[in-house]
Amino acid sequence: MRPVAEALLNTDGQTISLPVTRFQAGQRGEQDDTVAVEEPLELRLHTPETSLPLAVLMRTPGHDRELLLGWLVSEGLLPHGYDLAPDGENANVWHLHTPEYERLAQGARLGVSSSACGVCGSGSIERLAVRAQAPVWTGNPLRASFLASLPDVLRSAQPGFDASGGLHAAGLCSPDGTLLCAFEDVGRHNAVDKVVGWALTQGQLHLGRHILVVSSRAGFEIAQKAVTAGVAVVVTVGAATSLAVDTAATFGLTLCGFAREGRLTVYSGAERVEA
Amino acid sequence: MRPVAEALLNTDGQTISLPVTRFQAGQRGEQDDTVAVEEPLELRLHTPETSLPLAVLMRTPGHDRELLLGWLVSEGLLPHGYDLAPDGENANVWHLHTPEYERLAQGARLGVSSSACGVCGSGSIERLAVRAQAPVWTGNPLRASFLASLPDVLRSAQPGFDASGGLHAAGLCSPDGTLLCAFEDVGRHNAVDKVVGWALTQGQLHLGRHILVVSSRAGFEIAQKAVTAGVAVVVTVGAATSLAVDTAATFGLTLCGFAREGRLTVYSGAERVEA
Repeated sequence: MRPVAEALLNTDGQTISLPVTRFQAGQRGEQDDTVAVEEPLELRLHTPETSLPLAVLMRTPGHDRELLLGWLVSEGLLPHGYDLAPDGENANVWHLHTPEYERLAQGARLGVSSSACGVCGSGSIERLAVRAQAPVWTGNPLRASFLASLPDVLRSAQPGFDASGGLHAAGLCSPDGTLLCAFEDVGRHNAVDKVVGWALTQGQLHLGRHILVVSSRAGFEIAQKAVTAGVAVVVTVGAATSLAVDTAATFGLTLCGFAREGRLTVYSGAERVEA
Repeated sequence: MRPVAEALLNTDGQTISLPVTRFQAGQRGEQDDTVAVEEPLELRLHTPETSLPLAVLMRTPGHDRELLLGWLVSEGLLPHGYDLAPDGENANVWHLHTPEYERLAQGARLGVSSSACGVCGSGSIERLAVRAQAPVWTGNPLRASFLASLPDVLRSAQPGFDASGGLHAAGLCSPDGTLLCAFEDVGRHNAVDKVVGWALTQGQLHLGRHILVVSSRAGFEIAQKAVTAGVAVVVTVGAATSLAVDTAATFGLTLCGFAREGRLTVYSGAERVEA
């Protein structure tokens, strides 16, 4: 991997301009195009003896702290005390020091194990149940037209998508429609992890009182990350998958999809939604 | 995970009908909706002493053999001799027996390692170079309008997307525009792996003579899978990421995006394309 030289990055820090060849109506033209940046991010866990790779995430640079914190939450690995710091030389490497290094090293191995074994036999949802509780919506019922409008609210905070057409986004909206945060990434899972990580840095902020909005479809991992983080209501622009619906139903997550032009499809938890 | 009961699957085998609540223009309606199925697929490697999980892929059921073969190719793990068979009881488990089990078990550990360490330091593209050669396009130059039309050809073979709006697709087109195969999956990477696996089962078929068409964006993993499989020309509907462009440029892959309505953006390898 050749990291994209900082000088080449556009001012948004998330896209670069590259020469491309465009064809249209029999015409050929060489021009610059804006492309979403994708680079691997490595998180290294330090023990008294050594350091080991805890994760590598293919991500769009920027908000790496939020991404890593959110990833730790989603994996059930976030320690109570820790120091999380970027590498001094390589912008794609971060270092994690924590007294709980033994639990994390074990958890990382379990994580490899859980993403590479047993999920078919013992069950993704059942495993999730071990570390997650049913999220509780502490607010009033939500208007469907309000929920359907949230992707447009998020859309207004997607400069990287405007530029490149190649970035997903996730954001957190309060029940009055205020966009509390928004993050873009080549990976929709990363964008959600960044939201969760950001919420973590906000101290008192309770994810169960806000709505997670995602520009993509809702697959299992989106539902899993929402449940793990204590989110009660998720709105996505695209379709949900069967396993996402199953997960949402199991944990009482309100899962909404196809939120476009005033329309909304609620796959689970419709009791929190009114017309 | 509760596997979706076969009786609940729609006849396409890739979607199910679920009760949902739809909101539109102040109206609330309960109706059935078609949702893409997403389930984990576990591949178990057998050694003389034991068996171990080689991979778990979240995928849309169907064409599991193609998916697993393509995944083995993409990971550089495909053995020369092997027996690959579904489990008799659990439809989400497959078994791999091969005399090369030692290499695969090591490769699997390396795979975990390569997706969880070193990628930032030693380089994704450099690692790819160890196992991949520059693909060679053995056909004539390709018309841009022809390439731009291929997503429509693929689109005609996406019944799961028609039904659910939640499935990606990948297919292989010959230079005369014939769609040789097409596969749908919740995961775009899985769809590409299925194409590669299918090509493998066709014996003489040379991937360097055909065009890989993908309904999604082109991220690093799409470019990586194309290069590893010997594909020379890739057409995607969405945007490319920076690392995908970098990979394509390194290996001489012709990478095309935004193939819509007669338009085409060529990020790399435009010498094979003419207006």
